[in-house]
Parts: sequence; structure tokens; C-alpha cells
Amino acid sequence: MKKILIIGGTGTIGKEIVNALRPSNEIIVAGQKHGDVQVDITQKESIEKMYQTVGKIDAVISAVGKVRFAAFDKMNDEMYRFGLNDKLMGQVNLVLLGLSQVNDGGSFTLTSGILNRDPILTGSSAGMVNGALDGFVKAVAIELPRRLRINIVSPTVITESLDKYAAYFPGFPSVSAARATQAYVKSALGAQTGQVYTVNQ
Amino acid sequence: MKKILIIGGTGTIGKEIVNALRPSNEIIVAGQKHGDVQVDITQKESIEKMYQTVGKIDAVISAVGKVRFAAFDKMNDEMYRFGLNDKLMGQVNLVLLGLSQVNDGGSFTLTSGILNRDPILTGSSAGMVNGALDGFVKAVAIELPRRLRINIVSPTVITESLDKYAAYFPGFPSVSAARATQAYVKSALGAQTGQVYTVNQ
Repeated sequence: MKKILIIGGTGTIGKEIVNALRPSNEIIVAGQKHGDVQVDITQKESIEKMYQTVGKIDAVISAVGKVRFAAFDKMNDEMYRFGLNDKLMGQVNLVLLGLSQVNDGGSFTLTSGILNRDPILTGSSAGMVNGALDGFVKAVAIELPRRLRINIVSPTVITESLDKYAAYFPGFPSVSAARATQAYVKSALGAQTGQVYTVNQ
Repeated sequence: MKKILIIGGTGTIGKEIVNALRPSNEIIVAGQKHGDVQVDITQKESIEKMYQTVGKIDAVISAVGKVRFAAFDKMNDEMYRFGLNDKLMGQVNLVLLGLSQVNDGGSFTLTSGILNRDPILTGSSAGMVNGALDGFVKAVAIELPRRLRINIVSPTVITESLDKYAAYFPGFPSVSAARATQAYVKSALGAQTGQVYTVNQ
């Protein structure tokens, strides 16, 4: 029985993570508008307030983060910085500000995605942010104190989202949210650290 | 005979790139204080002015970019954003603002580094920024117009810098600046695109 905070626990993947972990763990769902506690990951004060509300926990799972999708000739400095501020630094601040709230041996599990490994048109900001997150997690894992662990899940396009995104991912096998969820469970309940769990099929 | 702009052409690696390419090409060296033209890559106006001064070119090589190195428990939001603003968005803006200045079939070559693949203590910002750059380059390569190309060189620690950095890289074989230079030459004078040239030994 672990106490697990799932940020983005009302989203497509997040809901499945909650379903998978709820039976044997104490789950707290954080969402931007819904869930047990509200959080805006782009605001450090909001993250701090969430952690204060939640108290000590054994695992933090993040399945949130936005980036801009646009053809490269429409991209500019500000559009890249949107993703750096939201999906990248939002998740990084979940780690920085949550460090003291996670019990010894506990874990952080973040979310990147396939687009730095297998790019698509309009995906250059996603490629940037996913690569940044994978690199951050691998590097931070060797520096965490108190046997704390950190991993990241890097899934391909999710089957439940194909109605919106299928046209952007020609020839990409999709994975169900339930399949992607297995990687989050492995990270939170297993013992590995510094891993990028790719979920390609 | 190509016209090649080398940003950071006065640095440890940059000097060797200049040496290697000067005999058969027209070289313009950009530096923060020295070189043929000055540029501060964190200032978009400075990048624009550099490109206006230089005129049309066949290749842009960037061997610049700073990040903060510190133990993870000393890192904070601002220290990560320093690297995102300098080494990451500085090089990204070299591409965004240089696109119209590079002739058809021309190339961009950026610089990341080994620390997102093979992390060291104090290297979490470098891991983040290098991963972001590798992901950006792979994604942008499939969207560039006019047969433009983009690659990135990801070297391990440079032998000529070991006097400063040896203690941070225990057990890492170093490579000479001249060895790393080969990857920049392959990118600028070859025909590949979307490649991360790792130079591990």
C-alpha cells in the first residue's frame, strides 16, 4: 500500500493509471480543474500548495504537459518557450519542489513521448521537450538522495487519442492507455531508476 | 569552396573547426568578443545583426552554449532556465533566424554533448539541454525547405579541456578537439541530415 499522487490523473492516460493503482494503493488525483486537488504546473506556488495539501507521499506520477504543434516555418522563439515552460519546467518543478515530500525510497515518474526518437511533421517543439525530459531524468537519477528514484515514460500515440491525432502519426502503431500505464506502474511500484520506458507498441 | 559561418570559432573546438575548413572554404568566425563578427546568441537582435553583416552563406556551424553545472540539491528553476535560454534557445534561434540566409542545400550544425546519454554528477542541466537539442535537430530535419540540412555533434569531454574538467568525467575517454572536428566537417561538407553525431572516443 503506497500513497501515490497522480498529476494529470483525470487525463486520457492518467485515468488508466488511477484505475490500475487504485485497488492496492492510496491514490490522490491532481488535475488542473478536477481531481482531489488542483494544480497548475506552470506556477511554482500552485505546485507548492498542492504538495502542502497532500502531505508526505511515496510516489509522484506526472502525466501532464503541453507543447505547441506547428509546421517548422510557423514556429518561433515564443512557441518553443511555451513547451519549455509547461511540459518541461512544469514537470521539472514537480521534482524540485516535491523532493522533500517524497518518503525515502519513493519515486518520481514523468512523461515525455516518442517524438524526439521518431519525429513527425509539426513536432519540433515536442521533440525538443521530450529530449530535454529524457536527458534530465537520466542525469538526475544518479544524484537523488535517500534512495529516491526517477523514471520517465515515453509512449507513442495513444489509441484513445487517435480520433484527434491519427493524421499526425501515419504508420505509427498506437498503444492503449492501459498498455502505457504498465510503464508507470513498473516505475512507481518497481525498484528501477534512471530509466526511459519507451512504449512503442 | 563554401562560405561557412562558424559561431564560437574562437573556442576550444571552434578553433580546430576553423583550422580544418579554412584551407578549402571561405570562413567567417563569429565570437562573443573576438572573431570577424561579434554575436551574443542569447539576444535575437544580435543574431539578426550578425546574419545581416555576413550575408548569404552555405553553412552555419555552432560550437557555443553555456549551462550551469551544480549538484542537483543546489539546482533550481532559474539555473535550468539559464541553460535553456543560452545553449538551447541560443542555438535554436541561430537556426530560426538564419534560415533565410542559408543557400539551397546548405546546412546547420549545432553542438550538444554526451551528458544526456552518459550522465555525470552536477550535469542535470547539461543532460536536459543536450537532450533538447538532439530532439530538436532530429525533428526539424524532416521539415526544412530547399534541401536545407541540420545535424548536431554530441562529443564527450574534450582532451584540451581536461585540465579544467577531468575531475567531473571519471573514466570517460576524452577526444581531441581535432577528432570532434571531423563530425562538424562531415555535417557541413557531407549530405546527411537529421543526424546526432556522437563522438565518444
